[in-house]
Amino acid sequence: MNDDQAFTLQQALTRGIISPSEEWRDRARKRLDQLTKPLGSLGRLEELAAQMAAIRQREEITPLRKAVYVFAADHGVTVEGVSAYPRAVTHQMVLNFLRGGAAINVLARLHHVDLHVVDVGVDADLADATGLLHRKVCRGTRNMIGEAAMTDEQLTAALQVGIQLAGEAAAAGYSVIAIGEMGIGNTTSATAITCALTHCDAVLATGSGTGIDTKARAHKIEVIETTLEHHFAGHINVPPLEILRRVGGLEIAAMTGMVLAAARCGIAIMIDGFISTAAAALAVAMEPNVQGYLMAGHRSEEPGHRILLSHLSLTPILSLEMRLGESTGAVLAMPVLESAISLYNQMATFASAGVSEASV
Amino acid sequence: MNDDQAFTLQQALTRGIISPSEEWRDRARKRLDQLTKPLGSLGRLEELAAQMAAIRQREEITPLRKAVYVFAADHGVTVEGVSAYPRAVTHQMVLNFLRGGAAINVLARLHHVDLHVVDVGVDADLADATGLLHRKVCRGTRNMIGEAAMTDEQLTAALQVGIQLAGEAAAAGYSVIAIGEMGIGNTTSATAITCALTHCDAVLATGSGTGIDTKARAHKIEVIETTLEHHFAGHINVPPLEILRRVGGLEIAAMTGMVLAAARCGIAIMIDGFISTAAAALAVAMEPNVQGYLMAGHRSEEPGHRILLSHLSLTPILSLEMRLGESTGAVLAMPVLESAISLYNQMATFASAGVSEASV
Repeated sequence: MNDDQAFTLQQALTRGIISPSEEWRDRARKRLDQLTKPLGSLGRLEELAAQMAAIRQREEITPLRKAVYVFAADHGVTVEGVSAYPRAVTHQMVLNFLRGGAAINVLARLHHVDLHVVDVGVDADLADATGLLHRKVCRGTRNMIGEAAMTDEQLTAALQVGIQLAGEAAAAGYSVIAIGEMGIGNTTSATAITCALTHCDAVLATGSGTGIDTKARAHKIEVIETTLEHHFAGHINVPPLEILRRVGGLEIAAMTGMVLAAARCGIAIMIDGFISTAAAALAVAMEPNVQGYLMAGHRSEEPGHRILLSHLSLTPILSLEMRLGESTGAVLAMPVLESAISLYNQMATFASAGVSEASV
Repeated sequence: MNDDQAFTLQQALTRGIISPSEEWRDRARKRLDQLTKPLGSLGRLEELAAQMAAIRQREEITPLRKAVYVFAADHGVTVEGVSAYPRAVTHQMVLNFLRGGAAINVLARLHHVDLHVVDVGVDADLADATGLLHRKVCRGTRNMIGEAAMTDEQLTAALQVGIQLAGEAAAAGYSVIAIGEMGIGNTTSATAITCALTHCDAVLATGSGTGIDTKARAHKIEVIETTLEHHFAGHINVPPLEILRRVGGLEIAAMTGMVLAAARCGIAIMIDGFISTAAAALAVAMEPNVQGYLMAGHRSEEPGHRILLSHLSLTPILSLEMRLGESTGAVLAMPVLESAISLYNQMATFASAGVSEASV
């Protein structure tokens, strides 16, 4: 894709995305200041309630309508030996999701979040699998170390998967969606995206993923550096869509599409760890107005995640040393968001409760 | 109370408290390592599940049986002008709790935590209030700046309130209890306890409580320094019970009693912010085995809270810039604990799900 083509596609993807309403945010803050608590004493919960009011432009009620989308896909770069787990685990874990035995199943059930598992590019025949959203673009990306991970058509199709699901989420009345992924090798892809977007060094952004040792991590850094050299040497401002096409993944592209379209539909987006944050960072690079729709569920242990959160000026809700993916950190943050909305809606005011206000 | 009397009372309070079971903790960790996730990738959730197994000495099931106890009392030191709110707010907020309009009501309802409001020393006649646990020892403490906050008898009675409620909690089958408080002036008391226990400087441990300004904070520091000078000048190792009697509060003593007795009964204790952590720190000072039963719900904005968490080697579950009290931070952490237990119980193992394990 040349720069002109990338620009045209970007325009189509970002059309109509406006920032959340500052008027509604102010209105929410005024109400929060009347509730029976010291001013500002609910801290981040007050920000979350005000952000939700600004996004939804209404008094959001509880229970929130919550969904989580887990996008699964394989990565050509796994042939370089960048992961502690064999590539087949992507497929095996999708089956685990469908049987209800994975971490995200447990958390989604407990916190009443509707779970949608999306095959956007798993290297296996899942045609007969029930309970799965069949949106396979192809059986995994190509090896980004020497060629673009996706063709133009594959990129567009993967973006479209997320855009379409965001439309369905809006039609279903969800007020907040969590996004997440399963894809052996995808921290390698997310690291390359992080370096290309923020111009940080691969050594700083590369972590141990699912649990590789020091030697394997050194090899992973080499793979990422070679990839970056191949695709971006001498280019400073590569269009975000071209970064995504060359070093991204099908599940990452689907999440980027979903973030853009969810923002357009006025749905709050709870991002998870390193991979989903990379997808969101690409969306923000295309359209800065997206930023106000994002909530960072948690801070993962991957060093690149800290770099991206800082790049996006997002403060994570939770910081529990997790590094699992599947949107587990995002879904775990849902009860905090729901608490914020409940407090906003249900607490008494100083006037209604007959409680004296502060004298200072 | 002389040192001998304090020692005898301490012995009675701490009898029979043993550490959580390391055998059960190991057993839980072994199971966690078999679940379909990269080793250790659930971070703090794995620690919480293992701690719960060690405390309960069984495979705890969900939904957990959860309760929160909010202890209300007044403080003689409020005549010194240490708070942004008038003393009457303690009473007014108790009425707000009973009508269901306070932050803790909202969070307890949302997260299915049974709420118990305890009058252990509110300076108001609450005899006709329904839905309140009537355990008033007296109508507030004396002004600690020039005399001991409590008599020996008042201290013993307030401790007994918490001990008795812990026994009732055990009988009711609660597996985890949150503790918290309401008491205008009680950050001043908690700061004095923190300084006496950890020998830190009052300037470092004093915060703005419910929201006093810089000038009022300077005055609060003076009050605390005068108090410490009066009670502890020249004494390094004051028995914890004597610190509690001289500069504590009735609600703090009740929480200390509850922490000790809950640990003896094998109930996990979710502590909240600065005040409840001061109560727990006194319990640990009396009996170090209590530490293993504590979970820190959150880190509040009060600087003294950080000092106490570090003193107790506790890492808070949440850090959301809250400073409300009422056990709101502890109850907000309950869904995280419940998530940890659910994951531990319900996730598939590599073997049961047919997922390949890591190759390293």
